[in-house]
Amino acid sequence: MSGAETLYSHIENVLERLLPDPATPPQTLHSAMRYAVMGGGKRYRPRLVHAVGQLFDLPEALLDYPASAVEMIHAYSLIHDDLPAMDDDDERRGRPSCHRAYNEATAILAGDALQSLAFEVMASIPVDPCQPAAILRATRTLAEASGTQGLAGGQQMDLEAVTRSPDIGELTEMHLRKTGALIRASILIPGLLAPGLEPQPLEQLTRFAERLGLAFQIRDDILDATADAGTLGRTPGGDARHGRATFVTILGLGEARNRLSRSLAQCHEALSIFGPEAQPLRALVDDRAE
Amino acid sequence: MSGAETLYSHIENVLERLLPDPATPPQTLHSAMRYAVMGGGKRYRPRLVHAVGQLFDLPEALLDYPASAVEMIHAYSLIHDDLPAMDDDDERRGRPSCHRAYNEATAILAGDALQSLAFEVMASIPVDPCQPAAILRATRTLAEASGTQGLAGGQQMDLEAVTRSPDIGELTEMHLRKTGALIRASILIPGLLAPGLEPQPLEQLTRFAERLGLAFQIRDDILDATADAGTLGRTPGGDARHGRATFVTILGLGEARNRLSRSLAQCHEALSIFGPEAQPLRALVDDRAE
Repeated sequence: MSGAETLYSHIENVLERLLPDPATPPQTLHSAMRYAVMGGGKRYRPRLVHAVGQLFDLPEALLDYPASAVEMIHAYSLIHDDLPAMDDDDERRGRPSCHRAYNEATAILAGDALQSLAFEVMASIPVDPCQPAAILRATRTLAEASGTQGLAGGQQMDLEAVTRSPDIGELTEMHLRKTGALIRASILIPGLLAPGLEPQPLEQLTRFAERLGLAFQIRDDILDATADAGTLGRTPGGDARHGRATFVTILGLGEARNRLSRSLAQCHEALSIFGPEAQPLRALVDDRAE
Repeated sequence: MSGAETLYSHIENVLERLLPDPATPPQTLHSAMRYAVMGGGKRYRPRLVHAVGQLFDLPEALLDYPASAVEMIHAYSLIHDDLPAMDDDDERRGRPSCHRAYNEATAILAGDALQSLAFEVMASIPVDPCQPAAILRATRTLAEASGTQGLAGGQQMDLEAVTRSPDIGELTEMHLRKTGALIRASILIPGLLAPGLEPQPLEQLTRFAERLGLAFQIRDDILDATADAGTLGRTPGGDARHGRATFVTILGLGEARNRLSRSLAQCHEALSIFGPEAQPLRALVDDRAE
């Protein structure tokens, strides 16, 4: 518990340090980036990076880079998702969303610049003890998770789903991109960076990563349907308000909960080849989703 | 001339090949990315990459990666700059801008996904004959050129300049980011990738890159003030319409032309340490800007 809190503060401090100084120009843009990133996220993805990295004895100072990069990508995607042309959300984590606190143009640019910064940070991972070729592969993995087979593609499918009433297969496909891809990247990147990792643990990690991405989204849909604004940190029922299909609207709350339990069990099963060193990762499986 | 045409078609073909297939989901997003990239740009930045790469005998197949990556970053920035919340331009290169041809949400995501793809392409540069560490350094250079010290920061300063009446120093600073940074990156990246390049040519290249970025923007401002829509490929006088300060509005047309001549002369001077192998690069200095 106190260990988890320490890791949380550590992640916050590293993000603070890597974000551009709001006292240097362009100040408003730097300030908007900081507002969006330092807005009280649960840091689930950076914690995944650290938990997997621990599994392979990677030094914390090395993990700080990919941990920050995945969170910057996450923060950028939230800024853009909230825009009036997208989900048109006025609140995020209990505060005005970035385009409400600043303006639309600044919010678009803050998202854009956070994406650039994420890749700058990835390409800055120290080449010792990592192989530069491994860093390149990890960078590709993050780029794939951000592009049309990941976040951006998932958001596009989500927007189109409002008018198209997707079935459960299409909904799953959409969420594997929109949420699953970055969760998956957060798990795979430290695996790719680990010097001399054998194929078997990497395969097992990939299986785990795919299961967790889906579980994460089902849990998010359940929370959106059941939690109050205080717990959720944003306006609840946003999915229903946008007439959007979710695991809850398609399956019903009971069946969505069943699927979540099954997915979580599969996550634990995928981790069964690891010993007690996977404890922080197991704890994240059972963690309340952001 | 016919050599230049061949390179142009080659750049087009490589971009076509690297863009995601519009027949695979999410089709609309893939189609919007293709619409924006394959819209008849002059490919000035990819041609810079190839011209500098030629200077150091880098193979064309290797240069295809950074050449495509810089063009994808350029295309993404144009999509976002044209958005209603930014410059609100309905036309680009004589056709509807991306958000007019599709919709705002798709245009935002197409830009986002093009940025991700650019970094995926950079991290895919073949490690032979390049050093992986050099590829990482080149990737960082592109990320810096895209972020708050580059494109995104320059666009933010540009938007703020509408209400702030910048002086010539601030205008120069803004354009060094908004336009200069990516021109500079297009020149430096092949230099960074060249195995065993000495510091002196790299320094000279840096000097050249900084001069050309500024010359490029002064020429763009002169064109915006003097050309007709057919020549320009977009609605002319956009700067004046947006009440935006340019080198022409601040210096007057005559003095802007003087500065352009001086900057171009400095570009040629910076290239004087190179022999006839710099001919394609010299031709690009005198090329009509996009």
